[in-house]
Amino acid sequence: MHTKEILEKVRSGELTPDEAALQLKLEPFEDMGFAKIDHHRALRQGSAEVIYGASKTPQQIAEIAAAMAAHGGENILITRMHPEAEETVRAKNPDLWYDPLSKIGIVRKNFQVNTDGFIVVASGGTSDQPVCEEAALTAEAMGNRVVRLYDVGVAGLQRLLSKLDILMQANVVIAVAGMEGALASVIGGLVDCPVIGVPTSVGYGANFGGLSALLSMLNSCASGVSVVNIDNGFGAGFLASRINHRTGHQGGK
Amino acid sequence: MHTKEILEKVRSGELTPDEAALQLKLEPFEDMGFAKIDHHRALRQGSAEVIYGASKTPQQIAEIAAAMAAHGGENILITRMHPEAEETVRAKNPDLWYDPLSKIGIVRKNFQVNTDGFIVVASGGTSDQPVCEEAALTAEAMGNRVVRLYDVGVAGLQRLLSKLDILMQANVVIAVAGMEGALASVIGGLVDCPVIGVPTSVGYGANFGGLSALLSMLNSCASGVSVVNIDNGFGAGFLASRINHRTGHQGGK
Amino acid sequence: MHTKEILEKVRSGELTPDEAALQLKLEPFEDMGFAKIDHHRALRQGSAEVIYGASKTPQQIAEIAAAMAAHGGENILITRMHPEAEETVRAKNPDLWYDPLSKIGIVRKNFQVNTDGFIVVASGGTSDQPVCEEAALTAEAMGNRVVRLYDVGVAGLQRLLSKLDILMQANVVIAVAGMEGALASVIGGLVDCPVIGVPTSVGYGANFGGLSALLSMLNSCASGVSVVNIDNGFGAGFLASRINHRTGHQGGK
Amino acid sequence: MHTKEILEKVRSGELTPDEAALQLKLEPFEDMGFAKIDHHRALRQGSAEVIYGASKTPQQIAEIAAAMAAHGGENILITRMHPEAEETVRAKNPDLWYDPLSKIGIVRKNFQVNTDGFIVVASGGTSDQPVCEEAALTAEAMGNRVVRLYDVGVAGLQRLLSKLDILMQANVVIAVAGMEGALASVIGGLVDCPVIGVPTSVGYGANFGGLSALLSMLNSCASGVSVVNIDNGFGAGFLASRINHRTGHQGGK
Amino acid sequence: MHTKEILEKVRSGELTPDEAALQLKLEPFEDMGFAKIDHHRALRQGSAEVIYGASKTPQQIAEIAAAMAAHGGENILITRMHPEAEETVRAKNPDLWYDPLSKIGIVRKNFQVNTDGFIVVASGGTSDQPVCEEAALTAEAMGNRVVRLYDVGVAGLQRLLSKLDILMQANVVIAVAGMEGALASVIGGLVDCPVIGVPTSVGYGANFGGLSALLSMLNSCASGVSVVNIDNGFGAGFLASRINHRTGHQGGK
Amino acid sequence: MHTKEILEKVRSGELTPDEAALQLKLEPFEDMGFAKIDHHRALRQGSAEVIYGASKTPQQIAEIAAAMAAHGGENILITRMHPEAEETVRAKNPDLWYDPLSKIGIVRKNFQVNTDGFIVVASGGTSDQPVCEEAALTAEAMGNRVVRLYDVGVAGLQRLLSKLDILMQANVVIAVAGMEGALASVIGGLVDCPVIGVPTSVGYGANFGGLSALLSMLNSCASGVSVVNIDNGFGAGFLASRINHRTGHQGGK
Amino acid sequence: MHTKEILEKVRSGELTPDEAALQLKLEPFEDMGFAKIDHHRALRQGSAEVIYGASKTPQQIAEIAAAMAAHGGENILITRMHPEAEETVRAKNPDLWYDPLSKIGIVRKNFQVNTDGFIVVASGGTSDQPVCEEAALTAEAMGNRVVRLYDVGVAGLQRLLSKLDILMQANVVIAVAGMEGALASVIGGLVDCPVIGVPTSVGYGANFGGLSALLSMLNSCASGVSVVNIDNGFGAGFLASRINHRTGHQGGK
Amino acid sequence: MHTKEILEKVRSGELTPDEAALQLKLEPFEDMGFAKIDHHRALRQGSAEVIYGASKTPQQIAEIAAAMAAHGGENILITRMHPEAEETVRAKNPDLWYDPLSKIGIVRKNFQVNTDGFIVVASGGTSDQPVCEEAALTAEAMGNRVVRLYDVGVAGLQRLLSKLDILMQANVVIAVAGMEGALASVIGGLVDCPVIGVPTSVGYGANFGGLSALLSMLNSCASGVSVVNIDNGFGAGFLASRINHRTGHQGGK
Repeated sequence: MHTKEILEKVRSGELTPDEAALQLKLEPFEDMGFAKIDHHRALRQGSAEVIYGASKTPQQIAEIAAAMAAHGGENILITRMHPEAEETVRAKNPDLWYDPLSKIGIVRKNFQVNTDGFIVVASGGTSDQPVCEEAALTAEAMGNRVVRLYDVGVAGLQRLLSKLDILMQANVVIAVAGMEGALASVIGGLVDCPVIGVPTSVGYGANFGGLSALLSMLNSCASGVSVVNIDNGFGAGFLASRINHRTGHQGGK
Repeated sequence: MHTKEILEKVRSGELTPDEAALQLKLEPFEDMGFAKIDHHRALRQGSAEVIYGASKTPQQIAEIAAAMAAHGGENILITRMHPEAEETVRAKNPDLWYDPLSKIGIVRKNFQVNTDGFIVVASGGTSDQPVCEEAALTAEAMGNRVVRLYDVGVAGLQRLLSKLDILMQANVVIAVAGMEGALASVIGGLVDCPVIGVPTSVGYGANFGGLSALLSMLNSCASGVSVVNIDNGFGAGFLASRINHRTGHQGGK
Repeated sequence: MHTKEILEKVRSGELTPDEAALQLKLEPFEDMGFAKIDHHRALRQGSAEVIYGASKTPQQIAEIAAAMAAHGGENILITRMHPEAEETVRAKNPDLWYDPLSKIGIVRKNFQVNTDGFIVVASGGTSDQPVCEEAALTAEAMGNRVVRLYDVGVAGLQRLLSKLDILMQANVVIAVAGMEGALASVIGGLVDCPVIGVPTSVGYGANFGGLSALLSMLNSCASGVSVVNIDNGFGAGFLASRINHRTGHQGGK
Repeated sequence: MHTKEILEKVRSGELTPDEAALQLKLEPFEDMGFAKIDHHRALRQGSAEVIYGASKTPQQIAEIAAAMAAHGGENILITRMHPEAEETVRAKNPDLWYDPLSKIGIVRKNFQVNTDGFIVVASGGTSDQPVCEEAALTAEAMGNRVVRLYDVGVAGLQRLLSKLDILMQANVVIAVAGMEGALASVIGGLVDCPVIGVPTSVGYGANFGGLSALLSMLNSCASGVSVVNIDNGFGAGFLASRINHRTGHQGGK
Repeated sequence: MHTKEILEKVRSGELTPDEAALQLKLEPFEDMGFAKIDHHRALRQGSAEVIYGASKTPQQIAEIAAAMAAHGGENILITRMHPEAEETVRAKNPDLWYDPLSKIGIVRKNFQVNTDGFIVVASGGTSDQPVCEEAALTAEAMGNRVVRLYDVGVAGLQRLLSKLDILMQANVVIAVAGMEGALASVIGGLVDCPVIGVPTSVGYGANFGGLSALLSMLNSCASGVSVVNIDNGFGAGFLASRINHRTGHQGGK
Repeated sequence: MHTKEILEKVRSGELTPDEAALQLKLEPFEDMGFAKIDHHRALRQGSAEVIYGASKTPQQIAEIAAAMAAHGGENILITRMHPEAEETVRAKNPDLWYDPLSKIGIVRKNFQVNTDGFIVVASGGTSDQPVCEEAALTAEAMGNRVVRLYDVGVAGLQRLLSKLDILMQANVVIAVAGMEGALASVIGGLVDCPVIGVPTSVGYGANFGGLSALLSMLNSCASGVSVVNIDNGFGAGFLASRINHRTGHQGGK
Repeated sequence: MHTKEILEKVRSGELTPDEAALQLKLEPFEDMGFAKIDHHRALRQGSAEVIYGASKTPQQIAEIAAAMAAHGGENILITRMHPEAEETVRAKNPDLWYDPLSKIGIVRKNFQVNTDGFIVVASGGTSDQPVCEEAALTAEAMGNRVVRLYDVGVAGLQRLLSKLDILMQANVVIAVAGMEGALASVIGGLVDCPVIGVPTSVGYGANFGGLSALLSMLNSCASGVSVVNIDNGFGAGFLASRINHRTGHQGGK
Repeated sequence: MHTKEILEKVRSGELTPDEAALQLKLEPFEDMGFAKIDHHRALRQGSAEVIYGASKTPQQIAEIAAAMAAHGGENILITRMHPEAEETVRAKNPDLWYDPLSKIGIVRKNFQVNTDGFIVVASGGTSDQPVCEEAALTAEAMGNRVVRLYDVGVAGLQRLLSKLDILMQANVVIAVAGMEGALASVIGGLVDCPVIGVPTSVGYGANFGGLSALLSMLNSCASGVSVVNIDNGFGAGFLASRINHRTGHQGGK
């Protein structure tokens, strides 16, 4: 619809065709040289820009976050931010909130639940916790209620089955598991909501950095399961939020 | 809740504990020797049992389908059913509908849309059509409206951009692509609904049977994208239906 | 002990050192040119020689089986024998028994249970049946009682849980599964006997010919699980027999 | 049988159905937030819970071990515990025993042999020793007698053949080898007991982190061999203990 | 620039904004249902649309080719067209030219050289010829002069060195090789023009379907070498044509 | 032609055959023991020798660079030179220029554009910058004008489309991208010049060190795209320079 | 030395430099269009050209063989020649000898032993025979005495040990084995001559087409072992012949 | 023959059968607990035991070397010995010679050439030197003359061709190369002696730790080439020595 508005202004003479072409090109983002920030994504996609911190310098993270905050952004999410970066980023963004376990930083944190239903984050073992928290905090930053079910791996089924009532009320389940990744399949056979599998690199040997859990989840014999990248807690949380927000008042049924 | 009912009957004396234990075990499925059919899954999971035809004999498919129909099932979906099996299956299930392109068979077909929103199935090229149709027919069998956007691969962006209005109204987009699988990322950057990527084995050489598209989609730089197995049109259609059915009246916004 | 007997005969003068050296070399097997048959293995290892039929000509299989039978062998097992070989093998071995599903042939079949306990063969789905039967028939040919639990995959947990009593009484469980291979982990968490995982090549796409289930089982989070090669039903049945035969009278506890 | 007891109490009125349902869910484990400890596993599976130390913080290990000890556990096994964790764990568990080579820690160590037969742990080379010791100590902690045969790789067959009498008396053999992993196959052809292959990551180049030995063992031409994950000494020791404990008085034959 | 024209017409009133938006979307391609043909690509990219025949039905190929011919196209290239499709395609396109070795079909063939310089297609062995011809014919269909140097593999260096004068005059060299793929590196060290490596699937064993030659070429120690997909003769010919057409009058120096 | 001169001198008696044979062998390079420097390559291949710094000691780099400078070389390029080597190399080559981001060092730097057209270096994200700069600086050192378009990944198409005019005027485009590597395909569909794809190892999980982007680019559905090794910015810059220098005065059309 | 002769003729005036340059280029091979035959290789390398039949048409094989025979070649070896090609090749080469097991054809066969020592070809199982015979016949065609030791796999060590005297007298041992490929390591530890490992694709599942045996042999813990490609019996026979021919009169010691 | 001596003593009464059996087992090696040293290997295999230092503690290396020296060994080779181990090993073995580049240590070094011919070690680039020196020093320690040809990679063919006379006189050539590993193929096509390829892990990106060069060498289109493990300089030097020592007086022809 934005395109049409500009075209309307061309017809009405408010804009020359040249000006219109320029505007179509220049408007949607701010060019910082090393990065181009899209302040309109929130409008188009219902979520703020997220900063993938893994391969950025603390200085770059600090500047991008500040630029976003200057545009009025809230819950500016920084993923994979190394603890050493905290000080530099906080210098420019004094209201930074930081969780060293999940390596998530949030500038202008303001967690407020704006949906009826909830998201379950389930994990196979204690070691999957960093990925789980990345998923859970991402979803919470986007306005979702999150229920954590940790250490419910399939080698001790009764731990999982004892939480069946919670699982069956969820709008989305995020199943986080390393090793053989069977959790996604087992949960997928128990619930009737979408299940997002997050394979983790937890394990050793023929785990091959998470390949084992990844293939396992992709080949799930349960329907209703889809998969994101290894250790991609953020991606799972983001997607779960999209699904949860679209879910109507039947949430919890 | 089923468990509680049985326990209530134990208290009221309607059932002995032994009878209850037996019932908890025996009731939920019908054992055909070579297969165990779960007639209650529709109740628990909101969808009928699906027959994965790839590794079953025509005779086995025919019998399972007939047993399901006998329980009153509709839209009994048979996936990956080879054309040679058609005759045998139809003999026992005269109302079989069969599409040789997607290799989908449906017994007691009855397509009726029971949701407000719609699902888009988009494909990179003509060769991805069998997988697309598997996804589309699966979704349609589950009561969804499906819009097909075929041959909109990223090497000719204008083909995709010209359909932007449709894409942006969808409740879910299924992005089917082989080769480099970039379609999922590009669509993921354009829409604000969940995107399900289906890598296909279309291609040759360093495609390695779909590995190329699979890795590409798993590493998507766009958020909101998850992935199912290579060529798994059924899985995508099933999951899309789940999401679409949960989506409230804001559908189509 | 055989070596000592020969050495004793050297001391007693019954054998010259040269004769002894010769005997140590030549005695243990019969050289048929294209194959060397070990008639003493039954003595040393408690089982007859098995013929791996996959890469032998029907004529070769027929001759090896006949040579074994001539030495008084029973239950001479031929694995992966193509249906086309049946006629040729039967011509030389009229008492051949053949099962086309598992591709197992047995010459001088004589199934007699000679152990107290039993082995369970459990499978994830109908399509795993050929591998299951290879395992079950191998174990039966070696004197074991076998209980088959087919189509109890983890996507419908109640099917598996309903058989828990049988599983928990077994001396060994063979868990056969393709796709994500989670069955081995789930069973491994439920029972206290050894579990042998057999990944199968059943599946498609990122299954990569059974790699998915193989890695899944190798990375099992349940203890007590070990793995044999993809589709290696024979190996699992053989090993299960070894364990079952060694198990004392506590069998079935 | 536990389920039945609860149901009996429902019939007799000792428990309401709701209380029963609760008990079925809550009883079997202790929830520590970051982990769920299963104190009943020893009953169900004949072995205490084991703590996989690799991805837990020293503090977490210390607390889980203490909780287990508080329930009266003995020989509480901690695997892959980094030397740096020793001090923290010992602070809470003063009777900790720790072996830096195998990285095994044991709280309330009490090695007492409770079986007739014995387990052999054989290794290809000096470098496989850490994995060997993980296997051997695990088996010893579970009440087994263990005989160590180290550095008997196939490139110097006489080293292995000179120990043939010990090998042939074992109830189980654990064959630990890196590089080409041929040890499992050669031992598999010599003995008539179950052989558990443990591929190690020892080697370089086309060893690919143990993949070479893993594939080699999975493809063993000897029957009676199964495989656990790369470097998984614990898994092999645990499984060997299960088999050894089930073996009756024929041990050593 | 096309966009600007449309905007100019909006200003001048020739088009309403709605009409403009429509035109921006609909104009660039013809929608045939199963495929979208881009008749303007020749204008934008200097080459006609090419039909990838591998996964299209003969009927689809025939219709697309006919539609292109109807728009005045020449040298309509069909790649990977199976011999069985020839008759069907020729029925609708009587002027079809077809080469069964390279599986290339050309409708309205009209080879006319329109550049000064030339392209060399060099191959390691006789078996690489189908891929070579795909490359050579593609380049010829796009107006290039092509010199073929076949069977000049590095195991017999004198065969290659004897053609050094031709190699050094080329504007582009396409180096086609299977097995170890060393040809690209050796040529890359001898010439000063761009070298396009085409790994082929020719070989066996550790060749892994062309992976060996692909990795070899990607790791070339010679500078100036880039690589296309395994067996992708078309891609190499297309790219070589682009480079050759851009090369000025110094061609052949 | 050099060979002919020597042969002419043999005929004229200036050289004996033995002297000629010697000269043919010894002349073209300078042997430094650990390396052989080819001072004539500039003549033969239109570019100076480049020093691959990754696996050389600072001392070796310093000596090779000095030897080249002594022969009158300019813009002596050192790639992958660790910051720690800077001091040692500068000691022997005081005019060393060094960029720690791309790890490029240049001795006797003298950037002068000697072509009409220009090269575009486009990148998917901020994290790809080191590889981008390696490509850009290499091309600039060889006399090319370079336009940098950073952070124009496909997840935000409008960032790329806003630069379409620049892209379409380039003589060559270098597309640098990690993760799913879709940038090369999308650019390949937009421009009509050669596109060189550089997959980067940026990413995590199923990225497998750049394999994901590599396979994606090799399987590009866009024509005109070829690929160099993962992170090989130098190779792309070198090849782009070759193509740009061969492009005649139509540059910029 | 050939180069020098030509240079001498230039000095003496017998050749002009131009003629010499031409001769250096054109002389060494005969160009048949689709192949370039090197009739001088026998002089330079002590062996006739070999025809790799796998990817050549019967007609091409027939013509190359005939051209070689016309130059007086003997024992012209054709490898991987499909049985269907026999008739066509024999039509042009009536003295063709053909072995369908190894797929080896020989034109003008004349086996005469011209060395003192001998080569052993040892195999793990009956199924490796085609590769063994390719190796053995290749070596015999090149004048070697070959001793075949088939079916001496490591799962029955006594079969191998009984042949130790023959193994220890060999000049070279070719160890052919599929599955886990341990034969090469075991033999490598027993003999003091070079051992050439030939992994075969015999096996299934995690054999991955021979990868298992290949990695196993490359990682051999025995010294003195090198490896050729999977199933490459010809390469092993050729190399063994080279080594055997270079071995002096100590052969057989 | 050793076996026969013992048997003769049994006949003559010098040994009882039991004593003989014991002697056959115990004699050939010295058991140091963590390692078993084979002092007779020199007799059986013509070379001293070699210590693979990579995974042994400095203390272990020191003790094994000292035990060997105590048995009169010379040129006791320690491979992959980290520089930090030097001091500890030298403490117990004062005559240790150590080369940090190749990480080779030699106790009681005494290099004396005892063959006529020589071995060439050729390398693709400067970075392959550590592997080259491991090969060269191993061969020298075993009495061979070694000629080093370093930095003769195929991207500058004239460097290699200028050394053709040396290459063609060698008894064996060891071709050491990383990246695309083409050196082995090119040398294999030029010489008529055995060529041992050593792939190195030198490179980056799609080199995958040496996989690229390994596959390249295994698929060599030149005959007479075999391959050892990645970076296995020792294995190549050892094997080359075996071949060189067996080569008669025709050496250098």
